[in-house]
Amino acid sequence: MTASVPETSRARAALSRLFEPSDTVGLGLAAVVGPVDALRIARGDLTAGREVRTSLYELLGMDGDGRRDHLQEGLDRWAPRVPDLAPDRDLATLGRLSGRLVTPESGEWPAALDDLQSAAPLCLWVRGVHAVPPLDRLAAVVGSRDSTSYGASVTAEMASGLVLRGYSVVSGGAYGIDAQAHRAALASGDDDQPPTVAILACGVDRYYPAGNEELLRVIASRGLLISEVPPGSSPTRWRFLQRNRVIAALSGVTVVVEARWRSGALNTAHHAAGLGRPVGAVPGSVHSANSAGCHRLLRDGTAVCVTDAADVAELAGPIGSVPTGDRLREATAPVRDQDGLTIPDLLVLDALPVRSSTTVDKLAVVAGLAPREVLSGLARLELAGLAIRTSEGWLRQKG
Amino acid sequence: MTASVPETSRARAALSRLFEPSDTVGLGLAAVVGPVDALRIARGDLTAGREVRTSLYELLGMDGDGRRDHLQEGLDRWAPRVPDLAPDRDLATLGRLSGRLVTPESGEWPAALDDLQSAAPLCLWVRGVHAVPPLDRLAAVVGSRDSTSYGASVTAEMASGLVLRGYSVVSGGAYGIDAQAHRAALASGDDDQPPTVAILACGVDRYYPAGNEELLRVIASRGLLISEVPPGSSPTRWRFLQRNRVIAALSGVTVVVEARWRSGALNTAHHAAGLGRPVGAVPGSVHSANSAGCHRLLRDGTAVCVTDAADVAELAGPIGSVPTGDRLREATAPVRDQDGLTIPDLLVLDALPVRSSTTVDKLAVVAGLAPREVLSGLARLELAGLAIRTSEGWLRQKG
Repeated sequence: MTASVPETSRARAALSRLFEPSDTVGLGLAAVVGPVDALRIARGDLTAGREVRTSLYELLGMDGDGRRDHLQEGLDRWAPRVPDLAPDRDLATLGRLSGRLVTPESGEWPAALDDLQSAAPLCLWVRGVHAVPPLDRLAAVVGSRDSTSYGASVTAEMASGLVLRGYSVVSGGAYGIDAQAHRAALASGDDDQPPTVAILACGVDRYYPAGNEELLRVIASRGLLISEVPPGSSPTRWRFLQRNRVIAALSGVTVVVEARWRSGALNTAHHAAGLGRPVGAVPGSVHSANSAGCHRLLRDGTAVCVTDAADVAELAGPIGSVPTGDRLREATAPVRDQDGLTIPDLLVLDALPVRSSTTVDKLAVVAGLAPREVLSGLARLELAGLAIRTSEGWLRQKG
Repeated sequence: MTASVPETSRARAALSRLFEPSDTVGLGLAAVVGPVDALRIARGDLTAGREVRTSLYELLGMDGDGRRDHLQEGLDRWAPRVPDLAPDRDLATLGRLSGRLVTPESGEWPAALDDLQSAAPLCLWVRGVHAVPPLDRLAAVVGSRDSTSYGASVTAEMASGLVLRGYSVVSGGAYGIDAQAHRAALASGDDDQPPTVAILACGVDRYYPAGNEELLRVIASRGLLISEVPPGSSPTRWRFLQRNRVIAALSGVTVVVEARWRSGALNTAHHAAGLGRPVGAVPGSVHSANSAGCHRLLRDGTAVCVTDAADVAELAGPIGSVPTGDRLREATAPVRDQDGLTIPDLLVLDALPVRSSTTVDKLAVVAGLAPREVLSGLARLELAGLAIRTSEGWLRQKG
């Protein structure tokens, strides 16, 4: 099966094991000479000359004065992993899991990732039957692992509402908010498109954290499991941080539901903001440490306040065939009786007694209006059902 | 006593009974011909000619084409109240309450009110021993009458913290958030300056709402009670709305603690924002209707998210002699062990096992770094107390 894999894809698969995510020099090298030659250079089968270095350093905006040989440092960094390279084995593992390698050369490559520029992943290791949805159909819902019941319920409502509006919910597969977002999305999805997408910091053959194994298996079958590191890779702190940039880049909007003052979810939010993607944060109690990070994002202007899926959809902007109804809340807001009244009408309304009726002259004194204005105001208020005319004078219609 | 009142002040006192707050034509007339002649015109003792009308309409940017006689409409509006004019009686009432009339001509006039331009009050009826503090020492804390226990506790902490930072807490004397703000401020104040200022929609001789009478009496004695309408005036809906503009104009910062989707507190916030004053809103549960108005302000950009008095003080900007310590929270935020590490150091730290030790070569493979980089990283991590060197190799220092 692996014989049919294009050489470029095979090289990207290999490089994704050799380079840590966002290895600037490695990714730059692949951009300058192409993945196939980059792999040959990294393995020592090909020597990079002055021209390659010049192009590379120019691309990366690095100091090329010769005092530091960034490429040699890269080669030294990659060398210890060269003996472990086995792209065919990794692709075979992926194949056994019904997965596929998505590369910039394939039609399925999410163009949104190119916004990461020199830090764009080399490839995506993908499990799931659906194609990766476009930017405007992916909404990330992320948050802390130690979520509260408040965070869990808001996440569930939001993820469910987003799926009903035509979004796939992107998250990180972690405990807490992430798991809740995936679960609620799966519960609401009709599988025309993947209800949820998990971006992992480890290989897609691994189920981490262990307590989410069953959930991740369901996501692999009904949604999408995506990673930029090859099968077998373990989740390290560095990969978690880098994984966040992939969540941010893939998603048209990123929402943080709960986050502490320092939290990985804030890192995702800052990645998204850095890419110019809209970011939402859910408010909560000022006494909850789990909302402190969200409030921080709201305060520093990184995020916009979102309270439900309608807010998130509005923030994300329109997508193709989303069921409308976001303005439902606006339409059902209670209309108070003075709405739409002119100032003189309001003054007359204020002046009208509720129990016993009064005269136009008395109303003029109380309201501070000319009798003529009082009369015309009373006429409008009567029409609006707010004033009643009796044989003795006028009084207010009880609410 | 009233004999010593300057004629201008006496005229302003009278006009404040004749004109409803923000009566544009009335206030404009007083600006064009001065309060004394404005009163004479309003009473019919003096006739306003074409010149006065021209100046007035020019000032107000009104259509002076003769199709509408705005001044005559004003005269008709004011006429019913002329027989009730008794400025000496009103000033005597104020005097019995140890109050004073503060006018633009007096040194105590808060210059901040002039930002209201043509809608600035004619005068302030003030009770209390303190002078009205300047803009940068007044922080408004407002919110809904039907506050929750959450709103009450946040209000208390915030008002108390603001007083300790040198602010006087401004509010509207209503039930709920307002009352809580006044009470907490009174409890924390040392009376060097008024701990709290209540801006009323009725005369300062009236205690409205009745349930707050005791509180309002304490504010009159230890803080300030302020109104732009004369003694005896009742609180009407119009006056409540206009009162909000005075709160917003007097205060250097306005904070909404709890407000429903439609609430008078939002009106205050919009007045403040319209004047260019910073506005804060306290976040809360998305399930609480009492926070919906706050979230609305955050969402539409009217307000900045504030969670405590430190946030409010930061939003307000520096004032003279405020005890510093607002950065306390920043300084005491927990420092996590990877803070300040370089990326290679972080990769090495990720790769370090916790239980059994490992070699530099193995670390190089796991971390994806050159052995040389691993070595220098280990040296820094050892120095930082994050890595331990054993006879067999290296392992991570347990946290």
